Amino acid sequence: MELWFSETHSDDVRFQIRIDKHLYSGASAFQRIDILESRELGRILTLDGVLMITEKDEFVYHEMIVHVPMAVNPDIKKVLVIGAGDGGTVKRLVQYDSIQKIKVVEIDSLVVEKCREYFPSLTAGFDDPRVELVFADGLKYVRNTTCEFDLIIVDSTDPFGPGEGLFTREFYGSCHKALSPHGIMVNQHESPFYTCYRDSVKRTHNLLKAFFPVAEIYQAHIPTYPSGHWLFGFSSKYHHGTDVQAERWEKLGIPCRYYDTALHKGAFALPVYAKELLE
Amino acid sequence: MELWFSETHSDDVRFQIRIDKHLYSGASAFQRIDILESRELGRILTLDGVLMITEKDEFVYHEMIVHVPMAVNPDIKKVLVIGAGDGGTVKRLVQYDSIQKIKVVEIDSLVVEKCREYFPSLTAGFDDPRVELVFADGLKYVRNTTCEFDLIIVDSTDPFGPGEGLFTREFYGSCHKALSPHGIMVNQHESPFYTCYRDSVKRTHNLLKAFFPVAEIYQAHIPTYPSGHWLFGFSSKYHHGTDVQAERWEKLGIPCRYYDTALHKGAFALPVYAKELLE
Repeated sequence: MELWFSETHSDDVRFQIRIDKHLYSGASAFQRIDILESRELGRILTLDGVLMITEKDEFVYHEMIVHVPMAVNPDIKKVLVIGAGDGGTVKRLVQYDSIQKIKVVEIDSLVVEKCREYFPSLTAGFDDPRVELVFADGLKYVRNTTCEFDLIIVDSTDPFGPGEGLFTREFYGSCHKALSPHGIMVNQHESPFYTCYRDSVKRTHNLLKAFFPVAEIYQAHIPTYPSGHWLFGFSSKYHHGTDVQAERWEKLGIPCRYYDTALHKGAFALPVYAKELLE
Repeated sequence: MELWFSETHSDDVRFQIRIDKHLYSGASAFQRIDILESRELGRILTLDGVLMITEKDEFVYHEMIVHVPMAVNPDIKKVLVIGAGDGGTVKRLVQYDSIQKIKVVEIDSLVVEKCREYFPSLTAGFDDPRVELVFADGLKYVRNTTCEFDLIIVDSTDPFGPGEGLFTREFYGSCHKALSPHGIMVNQHESPFYTCYRDSVKRTHNLLKAFFPVAEIYQAHIPTYPSGHWLFGFSSKYHHGTDVQAERWEKLGIPCRYYDTALHKGAFALPVYAKELLE
């Protein structure tokens, strides 16, 4: 049988993956959830038909969203994660013994339930005693929190649908307020290449610059995301993204398949055209 | 009308581009040549159905294959280019006043003829008086040359079809012989991500290591190539790839859209999984 999952990366570009089995399809109050099995990329999670993770390259995204801020400030103790229902971000956070508290605010409990079922090794971190899982709208949660976090990771979907509120001025302002004086916020920041993403990349960066004295961008090669060239925002009240504490981080001995401290610095060296877009 | 160009990036992954017009289709003694027009990516050249360049992202590939060696050794005078019938590599080489001679050995004169017709701004460099265009098999040409080159750029197709000979022990040995004592060879080195490329990446790197005291690898984000994560080999009798002469290169004032000397160093910081593949 020929069964192909197809995703539009722009109006005129499509990415297709041959599927062995459609393992799960369901709908929550927020979105349609599908889990697919493929030979080349392993299991795949899509939300409203948009590819979120594949087993083959999720490590790139998750290592880069966690280890970059942790290597800049290995003293981070309290972490807030917005989104991240697939478990990949939490899996990397629980590798740090020094982290005391990981609060995960995911809007959709069905995503977590199904990822626990179909991605058991990715979601194992949810059982760590330091993790508190709250099912709530990240935008509203951060508005009302009185906690102080050293790191906020915005592991959101794209800026439409349930994730839309996580790309707004109000949300970033609330995050700024919820961060400790040396706090860092990292967010997935879309791609600089296809025309349809460029406005959102620019707008998000300008919002972040308005709140944070440090608002930098870094990149990674994520083959199954549109263009394969993905950006992350590194916003901070104090630290610069390239101030990596290489020696301290390496002593932790955290096994990685994408990230290391040499790559860390290179990740902040964006192509000229991406820098021009962000200026 | 719905007209889609489709390329298989692996047995189970396809990349598709909506086409406005099929501008040209022809066959030489070596391969089928097609030129397509698309809204998102501009004009596209394919050889035997495989995407070679798009107007939208050719600058990434060509800037990275030329400026990286030139910024390591701005004293390069004599350059040999193998392949490169689309003109993009030569376009960047002729930006260097210091280069005295650029010999281009392309197997297929029809590629050059059609690229001159459909990509006039990309091929303008062929008219530079320092450029000598030879239509010959690169493998045979390098075997018999008595010239000494400071830089050899292997701007080949994939390791099957007409480009196959440019991924062999014999070819790399001949290149080594044809290089000056401080000579550098740069080659397009495929992608580390999809299974179908991994053996070729490994084999090519091992061949290069056998000939050159310096055999390094660097990377770029090329959205329309398989996985978007593309590698280049940097092999040399003397220079290391990260020894970039930033100040000298920046003084040249060469306008770029991807490359700069900060990105240069980062390009050599490969992900852990790619380093492991190459070890």
